[in-house]
Amino acid sequence: MAAETPKNVGILALDIYFPPNAVQQEALEAHDGASKGKYTIGLGQDCMSFCSDVEDVISMSLTVVSTLLEKYGIDPKQIGRLEVGSETVIDKSKSIKTFLMQIFEKHGNTDIEGVDSTNACYGGTAALFNCVNWVESNSWDGRYGLVVCTDSAVYAEGPARPTGGAAAIAMLIGPDAPIAFESKLRGSHMSHVYDFYKPDLASEYPVVDGKLSQTCYLMALDTCYKNFCQKYEKHEGKPFALSDADYFVFHSPYNKLVQKSFARLVFSDFLRNPSSKDEVTKEKLGPFATLSDDESYQSRDLEKASQQVAKPLYDEKVQPSTLIPKQVGNMYTASIYAAFASLIHNKHSSLEGKRVILFSYGSGLTSTMFSLQLRETKHPFSLSNIAQVMDVAEKLKSRQEFPPEKFIETLKLMEHRYGAKDYVTSKDSSLLAPGTFYLTEVDTMYRRFYATKSSESNSTHAVNGVISNGH
Amino acid sequence: MAAETPKNVGILALDIYFPPNAVQQEALEAHDGASKGKYTIGLGQDCMSFCSDVEDVISMSLTVVSTLLEKYGIDPKQIGRLEVGSETVIDKSKSIKTFLMQIFEKHGNTDIEGVDSTNACYGGTAALFNCVNWVESNSWDGRYGLVVCTDSAVYAEGPARPTGGAAAIAMLIGPDAPIAFESKLRGSHMSHVYDFYKPDLASEYPVVDGKLSQTCYLMALDTCYKNFCQKYEKHEGKPFALSDADYFVFHSPYNKLVQKSFARLVFSDFLRNPSSKDEVTKEKLGPFATLSDDESYQSRDLEKASQQVAKPLYDEKVQPSTLIPKQVGNMYTASIYAAFASLIHNKHSSLEGKRVILFSYGSGLTSTMFSLQLRETKHPFSLSNIAQVMDVAEKLKSRQEFPPEKFIETLKLMEHRYGAKDYVTSKDSSLLAPGTFYLTEVDTMYRRFYATKSSESNSTHAVNGVISNGH
Repeated sequence: MAAETPKNVGILALDIYFPPNAVQQEALEAHDGASKGKYTIGLGQDCMSFCSDVEDVISMSLTVVSTLLEKYGIDPKQIGRLEVGSETVIDKSKSIKTFLMQIFEKHGNTDIEGVDSTNACYGGTAALFNCVNWVESNSWDGRYGLVVCTDSAVYAEGPARPTGGAAAIAMLIGPDAPIAFESKLRGSHMSHVYDFYKPDLASEYPVVDGKLSQTCYLMALDTCYKNFCQKYEKHEGKPFALSDADYFVFHSPYNKLVQKSFARLVFSDFLRNPSSKDEVTKEKLGPFATLSDDESYQSRDLEKASQQVAKPLYDEKVQPSTLIPKQVGNMYTASIYAAFASLIHNKHSSLEGKRVILFSYGSGLTSTMFSLQLRETKHPFSLSNIAQVMDVAEKLKSRQEFPPEKFIETLKLMEHRYGAKDYVTSKDSSLLAPGTFYLTEVDTMYRRFYATKSSESNSTHAVNGVISNGH
Repeated sequence: MAAETPKNVGILALDIYFPPNAVQQEALEAHDGASKGKYTIGLGQDCMSFCSDVEDVISMSLTVVSTLLEKYGIDPKQIGRLEVGSETVIDKSKSIKTFLMQIFEKHGNTDIEGVDSTNACYGGTAALFNCVNWVESNSWDGRYGLVVCTDSAVYAEGPARPTGGAAAIAMLIGPDAPIAFESKLRGSHMSHVYDFYKPDLASEYPVVDGKLSQTCYLMALDTCYKNFCQKYEKHEGKPFALSDADYFVFHSPYNKLVQKSFARLVFSDFLRNPSSKDEVTKEKLGPFATLSDDESYQSRDLEKASQQVAKPLYDEKVQPSTLIPKQVGNMYTASIYAAFASLIHNKHSSLEGKRVILFSYGSGLTSTMFSLQLRETKHPFSLSNIAQVMDVAEKLKSRQEFPPEKFIETLKLMEHRYGAKDYVTSKDSSLLAPGTFYLTEVDTMYRRFYATKSSESNSTHAVNGVISNGH
């Protein structure tokens, strides 16, 4: 029994999809009459992807699951568990996972556990933990797990609108992974707050208290870090230091918050053991050591000083994971894994032997800090192959830039379409890469129909929206 | 390491809560002008619990988690994972789990993994599997898991309305359990169908194709049973027979479907090995052996013949689990565990050494057949103590019966309240038992406030709805 225990369980393979429709943050600034740099420097964002009327969280997840299976040569029959994390609700009862079953049913595989996990941007992390635990449990049947994070982040007109984005990520789970979980090194913080939530069921837009949400994020980070350090010390027999991790990856609603978060971590680290720090750090951060927690979250001076102290470490340990979130925007559940994908894109096989620490946050709130060990493994499940398969640079480059007016017009259309029935979409697949799924119709019974862009330029392949009562 | 591996992981303790407001199915029949026996015999239902304006899935889950911890003497700090299964959406992003964190935060425990699992009535089973896997995984930290199923099933005026109900169930998870998982004995069937779903986001009511949903349920049962038998044979080295299980527990939207399901299982079992069956069974079921699957789902003659053949086995192996579902109605995610709770209520310590097979179904669809081994264990985690703590007979007896007019009036009020803000409830807690949570107010920001019925007759204890920005 002990001999069979799977080792180094984690992520074997990844793929990412984001819509080709994009708007530049600089253009949005100008359009919104915002001061120059408000979105690009103030938020730290460069560009934003958005779903046109033919894409949604279901089509994106169908696309990314299909491309992952194809590019890594995985037989759909080899999948024994499939879980989805999302906070973009199209149906309140029928899971996104059941839509994805279409891919597996045609190969005769319906024996696939797992459903959707929900809590804001944290659902993907919950799904990932569940899938890893499954492989390590008695109920594992030797097949792969598959985790999908899919979200479309859209906001009502106002200050939060430039923090949108859209993407889907698929992760294949199994033993002997290049991205292995250090499962004992994990600290969570869960709490009842109303920082960001979606109580207006008829609207796709959230209710957001931006300032509260930022404070909650930083408080959660502090508590997770404290819990993480305790567990590290318990299991490793020595205190945790930032130098024990090579990279830090954060849930990234906008890049500025990632900068603030890492600075907060540096400040927390200073407070844990001030005497071990260099003179410059002591001098800059020492004056803030006596602040209460509440005061410290509000202090602009501390924010500035800690970001300054953290800057060299940020450039080394954080910056390599910021590319996709800055370019695509907030992807909710996919956001942290898009950041992690950016790290693999930038560093690929040089990550072997490195430890990466991730911080996942979902408003409401749920949060966990956890640790991954990156390893040298064989093709196709190697870091260098993952980087090649994801092809991030090409995906970013081949997007089409739209003026803000077009972005806003799309959001207006989607406001009417949200929760609606009995309409056909533009069926315009011209921007989509071959193999991309897209929405063609929602019928009078709210049943959704998708097609896939064929490899020949303009022809498409219809996908049945229903199985038992065909349309 | 191997020595530490937790054994016999499963359910250590249970508690169930359902609202005290009830309506008799016989009275509903008369009120609806339905033929006599349409609901009581046609559906097989006796009575239905429903939430008044002061109860919802959040209040019910707060109640049942509190009572479970109290009655079994569990320190809230001992909980390391908390997961919720529900398909009753009050917020599309903020999980019910975060509301439950209020119970644990006041004891200083916020390091509790898990979120909400969603797919119709199957979410609770997904949460349960996740929690058991967690205990068996490397990330387990030695603490208890806690699974909560909470739902309020309400339907638009029409034939589905009498199939409503409401309840919450909490289950404590850990090793050395009286209710242990046989994790290798598990068959799933997942598929993309539109039998019951909730695409109209502004309404609490589902879109239901009753006939399709019943067929999907029976098809899923067949496929799960096939997969289950394959795994049984692989792991036990002999074919599965119905006599290898002492009890069968089904997801119970209405009792008639449970009767049909068990009859279907008996028919499947006959088809698997006709020669082993007695002459009466061969004579009655033989003529249907040549039907195609589709024909067999439609055949009323088969339905009648198989129910007749199955009757003695149904009375022995199924009937003891039907009490609460017949009395309370469909409880969605809680339904199958309410059926299981009925079995414990009826048979308590006589279940020691018995095998119970459960069939969980969620429209859309996701379904699993799985096996539990019931064991003799020590107080407080014993079958007899669970039966005593749940106190099902007293809970059923102390409900208050309302005329159908009052039930319908409540549903009308709740239609207006669904997704609404800025209102106060009746705050009428007169029917609630001491310790029961109830909704007092939803403010202009949609924030929800709950109180608990105090042990002194009419006084209550306010519970803060928010933590960071108090109300």
